[in-house]
Amino acid sequence: MSVSNDSMENPGPGCLAGVRVLDLTQFEAGPSCTEALAWLGAEVVKVENPKGGDPGRGAFGHPSGHDSWYFLLFNASKKSVTINLKDPAGVQLVKDLAGSADVMIENFAPGAIERLGLGYDIMAEVNPALIYAQVKGFGEGSPFENNLAFDMIAQACGGVMSITGEADQPPVKPGATIGDTGTGMLLAISILGALYRCKDTGRGERLQLAMQDAMLHYIRVAFAAQASTGQAAPRAGAKLLSGANPPCGIFPCKPGGPNDYVYIYTSRANPAHWQRLLQLIGREDLIGDPNYVTGAVRVEREEEIDAMIADWTRQHDKHEAMRLVGAAGIPAGAVLDTAEIQDDPNFESRGIMQTIEHPTNGAFKMPGWPVRHDGAPPPVTPAPLLGEHAEDVLGRWLNLDSAAVAKLRGDGVI
Amino acid sequence: MSVSNDSMENPGPGCLAGVRVLDLTQFEAGPSCTEALAWLGAEVVKVENPKGGDPGRGAFGHPSGHDSWYFLLFNASKKSVTINLKDPAGVQLVKDLAGSADVMIENFAPGAIERLGLGYDIMAEVNPALIYAQVKGFGEGSPFENNLAFDMIAQACGGVMSITGEADQPPVKPGATIGDTGTGMLLAISILGALYRCKDTGRGERLQLAMQDAMLHYIRVAFAAQASTGQAAPRAGAKLLSGANPPCGIFPCKPGGPNDYVYIYTSRANPAHWQRLLQLIGREDLIGDPNYVTGAVRVEREEEIDAMIADWTRQHDKHEAMRLVGAAGIPAGAVLDTAEIQDDPNFESRGIMQTIEHPTNGAFKMPGWPVRHDGAPPPVTPAPLLGEHAEDVLGRWLNLDSAAVAKLRGDGVI
Repeated sequence: MSVSNDSMENPGPGCLAGVRVLDLTQFEAGPSCTEALAWLGAEVVKVENPKGGDPGRGAFGHPSGHDSWYFLLFNASKKSVTINLKDPAGVQLVKDLAGSADVMIENFAPGAIERLGLGYDIMAEVNPALIYAQVKGFGEGSPFENNLAFDMIAQACGGVMSITGEADQPPVKPGATIGDTGTGMLLAISILGALYRCKDTGRGERLQLAMQDAMLHYIRVAFAAQASTGQAAPRAGAKLLSGANPPCGIFPCKPGGPNDYVYIYTSRANPAHWQRLLQLIGREDLIGDPNYVTGAVRVEREEEIDAMIADWTRQHDKHEAMRLVGAAGIPAGAVLDTAEIQDDPNFESRGIMQTIEHPTNGAFKMPGWPVRHDGAPPPVTPAPLLGEHAEDVLGRWLNLDSAAVAKLRGDGVI
Repeated sequence: MSVSNDSMENPGPGCLAGVRVLDLTQFEAGPSCTEALAWLGAEVVKVENPKGGDPGRGAFGHPSGHDSWYFLLFNASKKSVTINLKDPAGVQLVKDLAGSADVMIENFAPGAIERLGLGYDIMAEVNPALIYAQVKGFGEGSPFENNLAFDMIAQACGGVMSITGEADQPPVKPGATIGDTGTGMLLAISILGALYRCKDTGRGERLQLAMQDAMLHYIRVAFAAQASTGQAAPRAGAKLLSGANPPCGIFPCKPGGPNDYVYIYTSRANPAHWQRLLQLIGREDLIGDPNYVTGAVRVEREEEIDAMIADWTRQHDKHEAMRLVGAAGIPAGAVLDTAEIQDDPNFESRGIMQTIEHPTNGAFKMPGWPVRHDGAPPPVTPAPLLGEHAEDVLGRWLNLDSAAVAKLRGDGVI
């Protein structure tokens, strides 16, 4: 599924057709939020510094001076306009665009947007229907409200790292960027809620989300564990921090590479999982054995049971193990790495991975929005080049003709 | 901020006032999604098995026969109606309710909802404006589309575990339930997009999300890393899998407990971070030293630099280290555990943690929706008791009077 970015119309599922988002965000927390809106059909316009734009364009892994893969991943299906925010005429241009927008969003360092003269109070006067959304590292009223944060800082201060890793070792950071994309998704939900109401009422509102606060939302199972034990939730390696029926965890497979494991889970809620597993591994003799029959007694023999399952999994590669265990009606999953996912044609045939043709970077296969709307995920168009859509956006949003846009360009405003 | 659940009206920020959600989900992926909608003001009605209800009610840590803390965390601000889906009259009742709903959502095992006679084709005839949303483990068209999945299976098969843990050790599972809540958030976004369009068009749609597919959305930085190197993204412990300017990682603090660490990050984009850090730790002598001045040369001395920073952090507890490093203008975050977050009054004073009064479980402090709408997160009301709202919901949605509800109850339908 390859889509060019020639068409003016965002194809998407079109749910948000006509919604205009003025996007002053950079890196990931903000851009992941607005990209979700773009995939649902909103017109998202990135406002970027004329000198290099979103610093994410120059993040790690940018091929020979082109935009980074990182930037392409988080800015698909958007438009780009450069505006010099150090020039009062540039600030005025942002206000003019906000007058025509439904949503404005920013994730600058604390206090920066207010110093630019684009704070909430001013923008609410410019456009009372505007939904004004902000991402910061720490919440207003936190002792750290003026501090900078990035994904890893949020994961440290938001409890995520404390519950990730081996029990007797230091914490590790989940590779998933929960601090950034996890935050962006919660803000997108609130923006959509506000848009839904605004359609009837014309009422804008201010939305604020701190990355640290967003982390609590993703570790609520750990708060449940703590409520049960009265102790801070532990780290449990590949197992569950809430404890679980053995066997539950990863088991080694052929040929023994760093990701050659299969996850096997026998649910507490379904005792049949354990019986089916015994049958599969040829240990029918233990079915009904009182030393193994309940999760509670198996906890006492977890090491022995894990070794017994591993004896079986070591005879198979992880894909085969997943197929066999899964087909036997037991929850199972191979530990797949990013290359295996990228190369698996099934993700592409289902539209979960899509190949874009980027004007400078060429073909790039990337994950799009994973929700199927009436049978298919929305199509993905490539991230914009810096300032690519100035004429288009300033023309349609502000009725500026090409002479007016050329003057702004000549004056260094855009 | 303690709110009783006596009031009929969901207080919330009210964005979704009037939206009706018929919720046939259990455990976490589905319930986290509908809870977000409830917090934004939708009326979410859980349809539960009269025999025990959502199995999440009996999940780990349920105090003396009461609903589990886990259930309370994922079902706040909702209502509950019991319906026996094995009784044709119960199935009809679901259809009747769906006729009055805006959204219906389910996360049963693959094929179950169709076997109940409540599949998409049938429900779209019952109510053409219905948004019909489904969560499964694997996507339609995947070789595993008939398999069961849980959070950990999605994290294994969706690439998350492969990039989490130490480089030379087996993968670990992030404690954050990205497979469940991470999935639920993406579906909530699509539901809200569909609701936004439906308001104008009256057009319902079918939404489907697989937990495995949702995981790709949260590990896109790993796909960027892979695009750069051509290799599967690695595990990097507490550091970044994309590599980073040293110092970047966790550093040990007093008194040396399992979570006594501070995360320190010196950004590539801002060389001042490193200079400020040298000043803070009393190594001004190294400012400008060509052996340390750029990120590129520091990579060669990462071990030495990390040891130098650790010598300083070991003299402080993690809170003090975070304060000092953060105040010096360097991104920093203490590794906080769930008990420290739970007990920190700042989360409560800002409304990020809220205390509910549950009728059987008593007072319970829990994280609510972390986005501030016009200055405050929405208030949280307690999760419903099993079947608590039968009269209320059947009365208002279906105009059934109490005699009719009593008859349904007598017949074992509810």
